[in-house]
Order: sequence, then structure tokens, then C-alpha cells
Amino acid sequence: MGRLAFLGPHATFTEQALRSLPESRGAELVPCAGSPAVLEAVRRGEVDAGCVPIENSVEGAVGAVLDGLVAQPPLVIRREALVAVRFAVMAAAGTDLASVRRVGSHPHAVAQTRGWLARHLPRAEVLLTSSTSEAAAQVARGDLDAAVAAPLAAEQHGLEIVVDDVADNPGAVTRFVLVAPPGPPPEPTGHDRTTFAATTRNEPGSLLGLLTELAVRGIDLTRIESRPIKDRHAEYWFHIDCTGHVADPAMGEALAALHRRCDEVRFLGSFPRAGNGAAPTAPGDPAAPLGAATGSAFAAAQAWLDGLRAGSAS
Amino acid sequence: MGRLAFLGPHATFTEQALRSLPESRGAELVPCAGSPAVLEAVRRGEVDAGCVPIENSVEGAVGAVLDGLVAQPPLVIRREALVAVRFAVMAAAGTDLASVRRVGSHPHAVAQTRGWLARHLPRAEVLLTSSTSEAAAQVARGDLDAAVAAPLAAEQHGLEIVVDDVADNPGAVTRFVLVAPPGPPPEPTGHDRTTFAATTRNEPGSLLGLLTELAVRGIDLTRIESRPIKDRHAEYWFHIDCTGHVADPAMGEALAALHRRCDEVRFLGSFPRAGNGAAPTAPGDPAAPLGAATGSAFAAAQAWLDGLRAGSAS
Amino acid sequence: MGRLAFLGPHATFTEQALRSLPESRGAELVPCAGSPAVLEAVRRGEVDAGCVPIENSVEGAVGAVLDGLVAQPPLVIRREALVAVRFAVMAAAGTDLASVRRVGSHPHAVAQTRGWLARHLPRAEVLLTSSTSEAAAQVARGDLDAAVAAPLAAEQHGLEIVVDDVADNPGAVTRFVLVAPPGPPPEPTGHDRTTFAATTRNEPGSLLGLLTELAVRGIDLTRIESRPIKDRHAEYWFHIDCTGHVADPAMGEALAALHRRCDEVRFLGSFPRAGNGAAPTAPGDPAAPLGAATGSAFAAAQAWLDGLRAGSAS
Amino acid sequence: MGRLAFLGPHATFTEQALRSLPESRGAELVPCAGSPAVLEAVRRGEVDAGCVPIENSVEGAVGAVLDGLVAQPPLVIRREALVAVRFAVMAAAGTDLASVRRVGSHPHAVAQTRGWLARHLPRAEVLLTSSTSEAAAQVARGDLDAAVAAPLAAEQHGLEIVVDDVADNPGAVTRFVLVAPPGPPPEPTGHDRTTFAATTRNEPGSLLGLLTELAVRGIDLTRIESRPIKDRHAEYWFHIDCTGHVADPAMGEALAALHRRCDEVRFLGSFPRAGNGAAPTAPGDPAAPLGAATGSAFAAAQAWLDGLRAGSAS
Repeated sequence: MGRLAFLGPHATFTEQALRSLPESRGAELVPCAGSPAVLEAVRRGEVDAGCVPIENSVEGAVGAVLDGLVAQPPLVIRREALVAVRFAVMAAAGTDLASVRRVGSHPHAVAQTRGWLARHLPRAEVLLTSSTSEAAAQVARGDLDAAVAAPLAAEQHGLEIVVDDVADNPGAVTRFVLVAPPGPPPEPTGHDRTTFAATTRNEPGSLLGLLTELAVRGIDLTRIESRPIKDRHAEYWFHIDCTGHVADPAMGEALAALHRRCDEVRFLGSFPRAGNGAAPTAPGDPAAPLGAATGSAFAAAQAWLDGLRAGSAS
Repeated sequence: MGRLAFLGPHATFTEQALRSLPESRGAELVPCAGSPAVLEAVRRGEVDAGCVPIENSVEGAVGAVLDGLVAQPPLVIRREALVAVRFAVMAAAGTDLASVRRVGSHPHAVAQTRGWLARHLPRAEVLLTSSTSEAAAQVARGDLDAAVAAPLAAEQHGLEIVVDDVADNPGAVTRFVLVAPPGPPPEPTGHDRTTFAATTRNEPGSLLGLLTELAVRGIDLTRIESRPIKDRHAEYWFHIDCTGHVADPAMGEALAALHRRCDEVRFLGSFPRAGNGAAPTAPGDPAAPLGAATGSAFAAAQAWLDGLRAGSAS
Repeated sequence: MGRLAFLGPHATFTEQALRSLPESRGAELVPCAGSPAVLEAVRRGEVDAGCVPIENSVEGAVGAVLDGLVAQPPLVIRREALVAVRFAVMAAAGTDLASVRRVGSHPHAVAQTRGWLARHLPRAEVLLTSSTSEAAAQVARGDLDAAVAAPLAAEQHGLEIVVDDVADNPGAVTRFVLVAPPGPPPEPTGHDRTTFAATTRNEPGSLLGLLTELAVRGIDLTRIESRPIKDRHAEYWFHIDCTGHVADPAMGEALAALHRRCDEVRFLGSFPRAGNGAAPTAPGDPAAPLGAATGSAFAAAQAWLDGLRAGSAS
Repeated sequence: MGRLAFLGPHATFTEQALRSLPESRGAELVPCAGSPAVLEAVRRGEVDAGCVPIENSVEGAVGAVLDGLVAQPPLVIRREALVAVRFAVMAAAGTDLASVRRVGSHPHAVAQTRGWLARHLPRAEVLLTSSTSEAAAQVARGDLDAAVAAPLAAEQHGLEIVVDDVADNPGAVTRFVLVAPPGPPPEPTGHDRTTFAATTRNEPGSLLGLLTELAVRGIDLTRIESRPIKDRHAEYWFHIDCTGHVADPAMGEALAALHRRCDEVRFLGSFPRAGNGAAPTAPGDPAAPLGAATGSAFAAAQAWLDGLRAGSAS
């Protein structure tokens, strides 16, 4: 891919995520100010795809990403990446922690290191910046004494890491997605995720009906969020991640059923799942009594049905 | 159709049901002793089709019909008929009710007129015969004083109706089916019934899963019966009637889903519903929030899905 | 119990079932002509309880038992018994099978030995009697040459068993129930069955809703039958057996939920399950991910809820 | 209530929400830096209750509020308030829009006015502040030329509103909640909301099971969000709002069922719903075929069940 946008500036976790993807090899990486700007650049055709955080982010309101994905014209996710979030306190070479008076970072990074800052820099003023990398840049310019940012930012801005791993909850992982205009989805790998958003009538049981369409076909839901629809009070987009690929018969039948049932469905992509996560449920595993039927079971059932309709068997 | 078997002898309610069907015009009607014999004659190819009672019968154990339908090789229902069951007490011309000492009928007819017999013939001996018509024949031969049978039997055997409408529950209706070897099902009429039987693993929730496959696709279930599987203790065939036709997309998808989910599924036919029954639910009727989606909704959803898979839209 | 009615005459399978129950010790056993007569004798207080076949019977239309149970005033099942159905051909001492010209039995016994009769007595006339035991009595009186009946009938009527085990499907088991006026149910044994009947609005999904009330509380359904309601066309009583006791919290909550949801619910008893059947699902068995919660789980949840309502915890 | 914390500083939308609640009359209002700080002040007993944004906020990461609510020791919501979000651009008296070079606001407010800023202040530098009110304070101190904030902030800081209603999506509403230590919940009003969070085993169908517990009891779900559990990869808290009160029988039974089913359930309060929202569904409304059964239906069902268990009726 030629040009790829990302939530900038350089040296953010999003750039780190993007660089981990094969699509970034040889591509021109274009930083944008804010996730909405990344999506807009893709929609306008200024770039071929864009990378934004979608879950548990430290660098931007994820709600904005969800809302941006369901806007029109359509966009789809083509790839995801998991990045272990690791914050470091960085400063000019030789800086002593005791001398730090002004420390800066992005609001979400501040939220995730609040405990550490309260214990180790209780008297420092905490200033907000538009990204973690921008905080590092301000340290390099002398506007701040220290920054909380990704280790990559120290390297880029010539700073020294004073204390590493300062997150209050070590082990946090952020999920990023590479978004592009619609096109043939990546080939199924047997270890895929499908993302979509749907609205239903605001009625008792309507969400249950939607989820039943998935469960009855053995499709496992891995994330759900309701986002208010901006111009319709008390109505929601349900954002749903589930296991499987649009090319699978079970997923195809489920999506078609949702198309019939829901007011609107936005297909947001089928793509390989990052990480090894939980191993896929083994066939015959009693914890998955139904499991998404395999392609061969679907083919056998369809052949049987075709026979019934033709009168050749029962 | 050339030869049609029915649960005989002549002048039973089953013959009455068969004569109400268009298939009986010009056909040779062949009485058989018992519903199993009817099904066997069809399976052996001795007749083209056979008529048996399937619900609320007065002339034979309906359980035997259900068990016979799931046997192999396969049979399918091609037509159904509803017959209002009307019992009459009949005897030789000039017989006085007070002089009746021995009255005969089929056990199921006796069961449905027991109250009347206790009130009006309290001292008469009640004898069982193999059919209601056979009781009338025995009256004609002088072996019995009176018979409880269909009015048609009086005509056939030269008897006089002494008292008409003696059923304890007037208004009973029996449903009969015309069964044949597999062949292309009758064309959908928009007012059809589909019958099938299925077995599932004997596990909590397995029946619920089966019924959810119907409900999630808006298919209305109208009858269900569990019949023990003869050679497997504590396992059951679930016999199910529902509204719709195997040619409907919703019904086809549901049957294919059951084929994947169940141990065994026996398709037992799609055919026009007899009687006007309950009017089909009107589109948009809030009591049927989902309703079986129409063919056009299915076609639209499939076109959308095809587009997703091809990458042309979302 | 002083007086117990049963589906007579003496020496039927029903008497055999009744004699296997502890309630029959020292009781006067009263034969009645037909299952409806048994239920009526109980309702009129002429006997303390009555024994009738309820499933897979050889001696009477089970539909009549189901219909009779939901009539008013209420009756409840207090006990069940399983009897292995074993048919013998019996005749006067010294009779040769080849000399049998007239063989008699109850219609349901004839149905279950039809194959054997066709192979071994192809030229004999088959006569119907009101019970298997009555056929044996007629052999003893010289009216018939042979009877198909329970071995017990040979003993009672001084006959000789010519051929034993003549059922077409060996291994059949019939379930019988002991029915009485309402009273405190038998103590829970941890291995109980609850039987009830319910009617719902004739609407798509209404049966699914009913079954969901059971499944969501982990209650296992073991039998379901729909019986048309005699005076309401196209409406049904659903007769349901499930595992558990009305005294269990899960079953109590489910029955109360059905009372709110259904048009009518008839509680037909909680009683010990006969036979060892399937062993109760072991705790932690993945095939029963929910299982009916135990009494202690219910008590803990209620204590938690009481705390929430009182404001003492969350 | 004596002391109430809120997401400060003064003149934020959160203060505006808190002032709309009856609890604020005569109370001391204590600004805190960040929603986590508000919750911490309540947990430590430094204040009696605290006000934070929970949905669609302009002033703080709502995820942090959800995560904070499920932490221990327990907190419960006692009241909610809806505030129409209205942004104004404010500056020192006499400022001309064309002269604005540096404009500041909280990152979420910037996100919601990004379109307006791009069109009307394309060349201005946008600076982030820790609250909208802090931006106004910096204008008053001369550090910024203009602020995007609540109109209340102009009044408080002696500024002039240059342009009012600059939100990209006019009509946005934010929901705020008043949180306190556990105590008896507010009396039911017939128009209440219940909020809770639950975790389930990470298995196919586990969320469906959870939602079925609500739906089968007629409880309407109005919001759902999954939040990753910080220290358990791929596991989630489901945050759920539904209609009804813990004192209602249906809601109580549903919460007790979730207590049995889920790994953990955090009850987060029952309280009056703000706004008139959607009118409660009328009794008999076919769109709500089950609806949460009323207290009297619950009482009748319980009386029936008590009778069954005592043996006095069926």
C-alpha cells in the first residue's frame, strides 16, 4: 500500500502498531491529528488506509472511532494489531526525578499512570498534551521537565528514560485496526474476526433477538458496545465483534439474517485475529455444544435440502 | 392417482376423508386393516398413496401413524383433510332404543360416546369392534343390536339412524393425511403446512435449541409431540408441524439448520393446510414481530451478503 | 391407602404396575373399565387413588389419560411405576399352536404383536377384547382358542403359556401413574419428576417462551405432548414432564413464572422418578452448563438480594 | 447531604448537572480533578456523594467512570441527570473572532466542535486543557485568546460569549450520575432505572444467557457496554442499564438469577430515570407481549405456588 495514515504524531503507540503490520513495509506513513482525521483522510482518498486505536486505547477517545466507522461512505477493517502498552517517564539526559516540576502526557496516559505520578511526583504539575509523543517533543524543546510516553518517543526525541514501566496496571494491551475503503475481504485464515454495527427498533427483546441470530448459528461474540446515535435520542448502534469470517457459511447466514431483522447493519470487516488469544475451541469441545458449523456440514445440509425440494429423498 | 389405500373397512371416517380429496376422483380405493397396513402398502408400492388419521382420531392409534411415518424407506404427506366427527347410533329399521342389549363400536368411538351410552343405554353390553363400520356390519348380520358409527355406515349397511350426534364433545374434528413415496412437493399456496420429525441428543436445552431454530426465522409451530424411540430408552422423536413450505427461504434455512443440529431429521412433507384455520398473520402485525421473512427480504439480504463477500459495498 | 382403583380387569399390566407400588400393600384393589372410569372414581371419592397408564401403553388410549388429568376438579400424580411389557400367547393346557383358529387381545396388544401373529398364526381370526386379561378369561370360558396377554393372566385364569415374549419390539416399557386428589406432595428425593399442563396464547413463539422459562432456570424437559383442547379449535394443552420437584427453588420459580405467562397451568404432581433412568447430571458436567441451581445457590442469591434491597451491601 | 464532590473545576457541565439535583440544595460542592478522584473521595468518606459523567460525556473518559464503579468497596448510583450539552466560544470583552490565535478546551469538547473550529478558526492553534472551565480560566488570565466551554464558564470568569452553540452535533445530551456508598435505594417511582455490571465465563452463549435472564422476565435493557477486565486478558465486565427497580419482583428475581449464573455481579443502583424519555410501555401493548409482570401478578403466582407446595390446590 502506498500511503497509510495513522493517529500521530510520530512515535505514538499507533505508529508502533502500524509498523508491526505487513502493509507498512515500504509505505509512506502519514501522521494525522486525531482518529477522526485519519478516517476522513481514508474517506477522501488521500491515503490508501489508516490506523486507529479501537479498544482500551491510551491515545484517543475510542468512542470517536466507533462513531466514525459507522459514518458514510463505508469503511472496513482489513487488519488488526495488538500492542502492549508500556509507559516510560523520560527527560533530558541527566535529569533527576526529584527535580521534575512539570510533567506532560496525553490525558489517557495520565489516567493510566495517575497512581504512579501521585506516589513519585506528588508535587509536580501535570500538563495535558495532544499525544504522548507531543509531550516528549515539548521536553526536547525545554517546555516541560518530563514526559510520560512510549519508549519509542525517547529515542525519536533524544531523551533518556528515567523510569520505565510506570503504568498502574501493567500488562494492558491496546487493539488497533487498519481501515480502508470496501474491497474484497482478506482470505479466511480459520482464526478470523468479523466486526459489524447494527441498529434495531428500540423495543424490549430486540437486542436479545439480534444476539440469538448469532448464537443459534454457533457464532461467538467477543465484544459489544452500545453507542448512542447522535441524532436519535435513546437509540443505539450496537458495535459487535465476533469470531469467524464473512466467507464462512454460518457467518454469512447470520449477517443475512441481521440484514432482514435490523433497521441497519454496517459490515465493518472480516480479518485475521491478532495474537494467539484464546485458542479456537476444538471440535467436539463440550463447552461449545453447537459451535459454528463447518463448511462441510453446511454443504451437506444444503444438499439434503435441495433433495427435499426436488422430491428425490426425505 | 390410480390406487389409494385407506384405513378400512368401507364407510369409515377415513374413507369419508379420502373421498373429500381431489386425488380420489377416479381412483380405486383399497381398504386396509389398520394404519400400519396402509403405510406398508404404500411402502411396498402396492398403492400409489394411502390415507390415515394423524390427530384426534376415532379410528386408530395415532401414535402408530407417527411411529410409522418415521420408519424407512421414507414417506411424505402430500395432502391433509379435516373431517368433523359425527357419531350416530344405528340399528335395523324399526328398532327401539329401549330394546338394545348389545351395542358395538371401535374402542376410540366408545371412548368418545361413553357419557351418552351411560345415560341412554346404561344396561346394554358394549362390545368392541375393529372399526366403527365393522360394528354396523355386525348389526346388519344380526350379531349386534346397535352400532355407534359414522352416518355413512348406516347407508352402506342398510341400517336406520336411531339417534344422531351422540358424541360427548360435539364439534370434534379429526385430521387425516394422504401419504406417498417422496416426490416433488405440491406447489406452495401461501397457506401451507410442513411436517417433520427430529431427534436430538438427550441433553438439557436440546429441544429449546431445536425450537429456537424455528422461532428465530419467524416460523410458527402448530403441534409438537414426543414419541419414545422404540429401541432407545429415554430418547424421543419430536414430531412437529409448522406453518410454511419447504420451498420458502425461511423454512429451507430452518430445515437445513436442523439437519446440522439434530441427530436425525425426517422431512414428512409440505402441503396445503386444510380448512381456513387461523388467518395467516398479516404483514406488520405486531403480534408477530418477526414473522417468517418474505422471499423478497431473503433475496435482498442475500444480494447484500454477496456484495460484502465480493467487496463491492458495505 | 384403603381403596385403589386401576384399569381392570384383574391381571392386566396396570394391576401388575400397581402391585409394584408400596401404596398397594394391604389396600383393596378395585378394577375399573377404562382409564376415564379410574379417574372418575378418584374424583368422586369412591377410591383413595387410581392407577392408569400414561406413556407407551398397551392397554388404553393414553390421550384419554392426558385429557382426563387436566379436567376439573384437580388430580395429581403421587407416584409412577415402569413395567416391562412382555406378551405371551396362552391357551388351555395341551393346546397346539397349529390348532389355534381364534386368538383374542386388546387392540393395543394386537398392534404390538401384529408381526408375530402374521408369521405364526397367519390364518387365525384375531378378535378384539376390552383388555388383555379379558381375552384370557374368554379362553378359560372356551370362547377363544388363545389369548395374547401378560403372563400374570395365564396364572390367574389357569392357562398355559404356549409361546412367551411375542412382542414385535421386545424391551418396551410402559409408564403408569398413581393419581389422587391434591395433597402435600411426596418429599423430594433428589431424583424427582414434575408433571404439568399449560395453555398459551396461540401465537408464534409462545411455546418457545414457555420452554425458555424452564431452560433459563436449568430445568430439564423429558417429555412434551400437545393435545387439542376439545372445545377450542386449534388450541392445545402442552403436557410436559421435567426433572425436579415443586419444593425445589428452581422449579417453584419456573412454575410461578408459567402461572404469570400462560393462560392456564395445571400442576399435575411432583413424585419420585421410577427406574434409575439416566443418572442425574453430575455437578460440573459441561453438558449441563447451567443445571438447576441448588437450594444453597438460591438461598445465597436471595440473601444477596435482600441485602441490596435493605441497602446493606452491593 | 452535606458535602458533594464533582468533576471540577467550577463551571463545568458536571457542576451544572449537580446543581440540577435536589441533593445539591444547601450542600457544599467540592470540585475534584478527574472522575476517578471523585469516586475516590466518596470511597474514602471525604464527601457524602459525588457527581460524574457516565454517558456521551464532554468532560472525561467515561470508560474510567465505568471501571471506577466496579472497583471495591462498593458504590451505588442514587440519582441521574441529563444535561443538554451547549458549547460557546468565549473571550475577553470586545474580542474579534478574526483575532483569535490560540483557542483552548478539554479534548472531548475539541472533538465535538472540531468541524466548527476547522471552518471558523482554521489558522488558530488548538490547545488542550484539563477541563472546559480551565480553558476559560486561562482566557481570563490572558494565556489563551478564546475558550470553548459551557456558557456558565463565561459568567464565572467574566468573559463574553463570542459565538454560541458551536457543537458539530447540536442536541447532544450527557448523562451524569450521583454516586454514594451503599444504602437503602430510593423508593420506586414506577419510572426507574437499574444499573449493574456482571462478568461471565468467557464461553459461547454466555452473554446470551445473561440477557435471557432479563428478557424472560420482561425487563427492558437500555444500554450495554463491555469493558475489558484490567488484569484478565479477554474477559469483560458487561455494564448494563435496564428499566425497573430492585424492589420490583421481576427485577429482584432477575438479579438473583444473575447472582447464581455469573462469576460476579455488581449492583450499581436503582434510581428514578431522568427526563421523560420514552413513555413506559402501556399495559397490553402488543409490542411488549410479556412486559415485566406487575407486583400483583407476582403475588398471585406466589400464592398459587405456596398452595401447590402445601397440597391445598392444583
